[in-house]
Amino acid sequence: MPSYDFTIANLGRRGIASPIKLSKVMDDFVANYVNDDERVIYDIELSGQPVARTYESRDLLEKAGPREQIYFDPAKARAAIVTCGGLCPGLNDVIRSIVMCLWYKYGVRNISGIRFGYRGLVPEYGIPTMELNPGAVEQIHRDGGTILGSSRGAGNRTREIVDSLERMNLSMLFAIGGDGTQKGALAIADEAEQRGYKLAVIGIPKTIDNDLSFVQKSFGLETAVSVAVDAVSAAHTEAHDAINGIGIVQVMGRESGFIAAHTTLANSDVNFVLVPEVPFDLEGENGLLSHLEHRLARRNHAVILVAEGAGQDLMASSGMTDLSGNKKLADVGLFLKEKVAAHFREKGTEINLKYIDPSYIIRSAPANPNDSLYCLRLGTNAAHAAMAGKTKMLIGRINYHFVHVPIELAVSRRNRVNPESSLWRDVMDATGQPPLMKN
Amino acid sequence: MPSYDFTIANLGRRGIASPIKLSKVMDDFVANYVNDDERVIYDIELSGQPVARTYESRDLLEKAGPREQIYFDPAKARAAIVTCGGLCPGLNDVIRSIVMCLWYKYGVRNISGIRFGYRGLVPEYGIPTMELNPGAVEQIHRDGGTILGSSRGAGNRTREIVDSLERMNLSMLFAIGGDGTQKGALAIADEAEQRGYKLAVIGIPKTIDNDLSFVQKSFGLETAVSVAVDAVSAAHTEAHDAINGIGIVQVMGRESGFIAAHTTLANSDVNFVLVPEVPFDLEGENGLLSHLEHRLARRNHAVILVAEGAGQDLMASSGMTDLSGNKKLADVGLFLKEKVAAHFREKGTEINLKYIDPSYIIRSAPANPNDSLYCLRLGTNAAHAAMAGKTKMLIGRINYHFVHVPIELAVSRRNRVNPESSLWRDVMDATGQPPLMKN
Amino acid sequence: MPSYDFTIANLGRRGIASPIKLSKVMDDFVANYVNDDERVIYDIELSGQPVARTYESRDLLEKAGPREQIYFDPAKARAAIVTCGGLCPGLNDVIRSIVMCLWYKYGVRNISGIRFGYRGLVPEYGIPTMELNPGAVEQIHRDGGTILGSSRGAGNRTREIVDSLERMNLSMLFAIGGDGTQKGALAIADEAEQRGYKLAVIGIPKTIDNDLSFVQKSFGLETAVSVAVDAVSAAHTEAHDAINGIGIVQVMGRESGFIAAHTTLANSDVNFVLVPEVPFDLEGENGLLSHLEHRLARRNHAVILVAEGAGQDLMASSGMTDLSGNKKLADVGLFLKEKVAAHFREKGTEINLKYIDPSYIIRSAPANPNDSLYCLRLGTNAAHAAMAGKTKMLIGRINYHFVHVPIELAVSRRNRVNPESSLWRDVMDATGQPPLMKN
Amino acid sequence: MPSYDFTIANLGRRGIASPIKLSKVMDDFVANYVNDDERVIYDIELSGQPVARTYESRDLLEKAGPREQIYFDPAKARAAIVTCGGLCPGLNDVIRSIVMCLWYKYGVRNISGIRFGYRGLVPEYGIPTMELNPGAVEQIHRDGGTILGSSRGAGNRTREIVDSLERMNLSMLFAIGGDGTQKGALAIADEAEQRGYKLAVIGIPKTIDNDLSFVQKSFGLETAVSVAVDAVSAAHTEAHDAINGIGIVQVMGRESGFIAAHTTLANSDVNFVLVPEVPFDLEGENGLLSHLEHRLARRNHAVILVAEGAGQDLMASSGMTDLSGNKKLADVGLFLKEKVAAHFREKGTEINLKYIDPSYIIRSAPANPNDSLYCLRLGTNAAHAAMAGKTKMLIGRINYHFVHVPIELAVSRRNRVNPESSLWRDVMDATGQPPLMKN
Repeated sequence: MPSYDFTIANLGRRGIASPIKLSKVMDDFVANYVNDDERVIYDIELSGQPVARTYESRDLLEKAGPREQIYFDPAKARAAIVTCGGLCPGLNDVIRSIVMCLWYKYGVRNISGIRFGYRGLVPEYGIPTMELNPGAVEQIHRDGGTILGSSRGAGNRTREIVDSLERMNLSMLFAIGGDGTQKGALAIADEAEQRGYKLAVIGIPKTIDNDLSFVQKSFGLETAVSVAVDAVSAAHTEAHDAINGIGIVQVMGRESGFIAAHTTLANSDVNFVLVPEVPFDLEGENGLLSHLEHRLARRNHAVILVAEGAGQDLMASSGMTDLSGNKKLADVGLFLKEKVAAHFREKGTEINLKYIDPSYIIRSAPANPNDSLYCLRLGTNAAHAAMAGKTKMLIGRINYHFVHVPIELAVSRRNRVNPESSLWRDVMDATGQPPLMKN
Repeated sequence: MPSYDFTIANLGRRGIASPIKLSKVMDDFVANYVNDDERVIYDIELSGQPVARTYESRDLLEKAGPREQIYFDPAKARAAIVTCGGLCPGLNDVIRSIVMCLWYKYGVRNISGIRFGYRGLVPEYGIPTMELNPGAVEQIHRDGGTILGSSRGAGNRTREIVDSLERMNLSMLFAIGGDGTQKGALAIADEAEQRGYKLAVIGIPKTIDNDLSFVQKSFGLETAVSVAVDAVSAAHTEAHDAINGIGIVQVMGRESGFIAAHTTLANSDVNFVLVPEVPFDLEGENGLLSHLEHRLARRNHAVILVAEGAGQDLMASSGMTDLSGNKKLADVGLFLKEKVAAHFREKGTEINLKYIDPSYIIRSAPANPNDSLYCLRLGTNAAHAAMAGKTKMLIGRINYHFVHVPIELAVSRRNRVNPESSLWRDVMDATGQPPLMKN
Repeated sequence: MPSYDFTIANLGRRGIASPIKLSKVMDDFVANYVNDDERVIYDIELSGQPVARTYESRDLLEKAGPREQIYFDPAKARAAIVTCGGLCPGLNDVIRSIVMCLWYKYGVRNISGIRFGYRGLVPEYGIPTMELNPGAVEQIHRDGGTILGSSRGAGNRTREIVDSLERMNLSMLFAIGGDGTQKGALAIADEAEQRGYKLAVIGIPKTIDNDLSFVQKSFGLETAVSVAVDAVSAAHTEAHDAINGIGIVQVMGRESGFIAAHTTLANSDVNFVLVPEVPFDLEGENGLLSHLEHRLARRNHAVILVAEGAGQDLMASSGMTDLSGNKKLADVGLFLKEKVAAHFREKGTEINLKYIDPSYIIRSAPANPNDSLYCLRLGTNAAHAAMAGKTKMLIGRINYHFVHVPIELAVSRRNRVNPESSLWRDVMDATGQPPLMKN
Repeated sequence: MPSYDFTIANLGRRGIASPIKLSKVMDDFVANYVNDDERVIYDIELSGQPVARTYESRDLLEKAGPREQIYFDPAKARAAIVTCGGLCPGLNDVIRSIVMCLWYKYGVRNISGIRFGYRGLVPEYGIPTMELNPGAVEQIHRDGGTILGSSRGAGNRTREIVDSLERMNLSMLFAIGGDGTQKGALAIADEAEQRGYKLAVIGIPKTIDNDLSFVQKSFGLETAVSVAVDAVSAAHTEAHDAINGIGIVQVMGRESGFIAAHTTLANSDVNFVLVPEVPFDLEGENGLLSHLEHRLARRNHAVILVAEGAGQDLMASSGMTDLSGNKKLADVGLFLKEKVAAHFREKGTEINLKYIDPSYIIRSAPANPNDSLYCLRLGTNAAHAAMAGKTKMLIGRINYHFVHVPIELAVSRRNRVNPESSLWRDVMDATGQPPLMKN
């Protein structure tokens, strides 16, 4: 059993009774407050041999939910919400539910939207904030994107940002974003702590690639898959209806191939799926091009689904990073397109190659109903955590429970598709491709 | 910690090497066979106090997946698939993936579709079976319903059914259905065992109401919710655009209100949600009609979402059962419609009441992408279990793992919405209705 | 050639230059103003023999569009919009485009929304109006229904209504509604004329049944058909997957069966389609029940699509009218359901009968893209007509041209499905039902 | 009034009674046969001055539909269907309805599908034909693309193709395709005529760009627009949520901008629309870049929708043609993307530019319900025309009537968006862009 420390940081002793009226007894048909010592087991796989385990509080994940005592006085509390990084279905749902819960359940009346990511907190950019209230957010969940706008990176401005937060007299900051955003949130919380400034920093993990650990399924992933499925269907139709038709679809997935894997399982048209976690060769008897050639000879058409982070070793890496500090990836879809075209040109085989990159259409889609309900619950739990004075944590979803996860732990490693997992096993079965295309 | 015996029945010693080529070592990018002693913990909630637990094999759920040794010789094995009870999104996806896995992964060439439920196994009905192979099932996942047809109940014909199975010389039976179907499957397996007839009986739990235990989220539920959301939107529009408009939507949920609960969370338009698990009064100061009246006075329109099993105590029960042995429910939606109309008629208040029952449109929808991929994996794991000679079990999904669950355990109690759970707490927040409408 | 008088009433001489900057010359890539004498031929069918026709102005339809001279001073003009009768996809699109055109193209700043139909103009009801401007309508086209609300009928209150309009000092009234609404609009215009009150009354024909003449395809029809198609698919799936399954779907169509006819052509699953225009028998050798019986014997399942106005002669008419003065129809769908059930009960044949009434889901759907663009153009042309001082007319769509049609003419007869037309011929081919089920 | 000769070529005298049972009298609720002399007026616009017109048969369009006498003996007739050029929503619907009508209505049993366009008729390629019957086509309308496959051009092989048709002993050829395909069909018909080979050649106009004349709205256009609308929404969301966000969407439209125009009207998010019919400058005070700059200054985001054939004069034309003989267009979307990026780079303004090309997703979509019903009627009328021995014609849709149009006339000029039409006027209003961006 791996060892984690799941202890959650708190701003201090809570002394205010929650304005939310819940029950303290069972069987009265009314939900109860959640206690800090209600926990869930994270690591649930065993080998079946009789085994004894001892669970301490710090080995277990803390359950999310409303506490009987809260830390901030709702009449004085000031909240801010910020969205960072690329778009993802469900962002507006999360913003909406934080606002609704703070406003209606706790009576917080001062909620600011920070515009265009952390930049909105750097005075130099001169970006005004946006007032958030039920009227402003009531209908926003029907739109893709984020009403707050977003941006990649404000650079290394933690001190300036905390200055801004102090000037705004904020009690809590909700940071919706991925790996980089959460690291930034942690730096902000650390800086605030050093200053003795009582700021609750709560992360809501946004990763369309599903690559944050302790978040078994990130919001927006399902919606992303359902849009990607349509792009794969289009590629299949184009490939099927042409002489030696080949469709290549590139989807998101810098470090992890979850969108590609799920899309393959949800759509029976993918013949080759390429993800960052599984290396492959282009050339040689067991390389992609050879298998593609055999497929065309046998069936006359083929569909390749590739995650943007796949096959990076095959390309001369650009070595650059974008403003968020992410390594800039060479575009593997276009690279494959050229390699495939060149291969068959050399062989003198006519092919019909269609390349589809639906990334922006996927990212900007509004959440589907299941993602909507998930986001609603994420945002609500984030509001409960902040009001209770929790900090340096994000809302995770583990084994069907909403839990509190230390940011430090969540960003310590990536969630990746395990090529030896049952998920990838089922993906391989669904494609019929060889398990490993390496010579 | 509640005590369950998760031990899975096996037909006997397996002596045939699986034709599926997987790995036995780690880190070679190829998935490994699953051993019978790979297990997962079911009960993961703890109070946070230091605690010691001892896990025996029988306290833990067995992981699903392909075994290195199988029980049936694929060249001789004969399989049959039957679908029973009401329609549910994803049935065809499950049929398809069982056939695909048996055919392509194991080489089984003799697969029969039993038509119209268990009736197709009762000679009296004279219903011929249907040959299943990849060509026959390739495209069926794009349709709602089941290509096999379905029916409610064949009565108490276990012996005749086992006679039929023996005559067909079947090695395995896949029973896709709910509570009643799984009880029938168990009776069949027991009868076969008594006869010394080596039959693997594998259940695939189908319950659009999500009311089977040890199945945390049943297939089709998400699709059902996404269609129900549209019906609620229609009711909201109709209610909103009329003078004192009231929309009532009835959805499935005989014993459990999961569809109603999830739909409420996915759609912000529901003002009152009524489920079988939470009693309510119509009359009196704290009754539904009084709260509805206040809502109209305040907002001029209201939407009520009711699960078909809600409020049964308020109606004179018919005492009848349908052919599956399910208690026949009086129609609560129409009952409410009449009560609401009468109430405002008496008060002399003009209302505009619209009643929508989208049940058939929900049930017969094709699976959405996420349900499709779930069904694909359910069916694949069912095929693996049958080939390995497991029996009297169904494929469950617990804490993100596909597992084997004894049918006896799965049908021993219902999965119901716990009114004190975080799910129902969030539902109550989303509606704004009083937690309990009882005087 | 039938004879119509297409002359359009005008409030008087126009003396104000339009603020819209268009061109007066050809070939400069800029659209020109439309002159009142630009006309289109309505009746375009000929027998092919050499024929001479003489066209006078009054035999021809006036083209809609912006005039170079307008009647009302935009700075002083006051407009109101009212929506009446049942919901229909596209209502909000029409409201939006009228407001956008008046505001941005003409500079009109005083636009009122009348709430809940003509009732909003009857003081007794005490319903306040709603201010309309670009901010209020920008996003409304994404919702079904009407932001103004609607109601059926205010009774015979023309004088009170005109009193209200005068009090509001309105220059123009846009009446979005069907047959009854347009008759009401004409009565209002007549009353205003008698008083010497210069009021432009412009109708926008709303008829989901497509039954207004001189409107070849009414807005919302396509959207309605696309939703009805899904309901028919559901009925087909339910019928197909059961023993002797029968699906009955009832759609709108009091006097005309266009929705039923188009749905049948767009969906290959309908076996029997019943519309008001074509009589049918239930009993007898050539009656529906006999043909249904043969179909079940042959194919085991059947789908019946029925327009709500079909087969009225078969039921004892209730003789009642609703508040709009429409004859109250007995519910033919439920009538058929009972008749079919009784028939097979008598024969001792087990059937599985599912009844679906998707009417509210159809009516309240948001417009699909093609209806959206149609509504945008309808509303824009209505605004142009009002500003030019036209009155007692509605915007029609004839042979792909937007035109002005006298209300009097438009309400003088119904648009109905001609059983001898090519449309119905193709419908009959698509079902395979006998052309006439009469003994 | 322009002068056209609408006379339709016939193979000869018809002497066989149609097996379709229709009526010859009115008012019996059964459709009548269509006579060759039933005609419709094409040119319906008049100036409103009293005018006399004389119509001869050849000035008028012949109505499509079943004739009482047919030319081919159904028992001996052999039909073939070919689809050419790029994919378009509805192709399978058309194939399906031709097969269904020939098979069920006429009893033709010998129907071949030619694979991969005209190439399937050139022996050198060795492509086998595909047998078509109701079972083979029953479900195909639910898929995008064409089950027959398609290709661009077989070169100049008319004689070889007619040789193949003769060898197959075909009586009729249905050619589904655009401008080039119809020219090819005419060449085939001419060659057959010279040989005295009685071949009915019927075109079904396929042009997603809507650029064939005498076809007021081509099949697939609506579906294309509805998919394009989603891409524009995505571009809007991406642009709106970024600092100085700009979205560029490129859609089909080599010679005509109908998809772009309709998409703009159906979606209120387009700020600049560029089509082949309206020239524009990039640079200068009244150029696109200057207007874009002002828009960003005012609103911070912008969406540009560009048809692929727009602005060709601005790019150095490649001078190449593709295999169908179409001029190869330089990619204007990517050209614009570079020009916009360079412009703001020079100005030192940070922008966020997203480029979306949804072409393949649009082309390969299945037809929406309205396109489905249109395609069903197109194909049915094509079958009627062929059986009646018509040739060298295509099925047009003029003023809501299905008609016969001589291929020669249909390919003699392009259908283009008239910048001075009411359509383009409404498009300009919807965007707010200047009517002409030329200095």
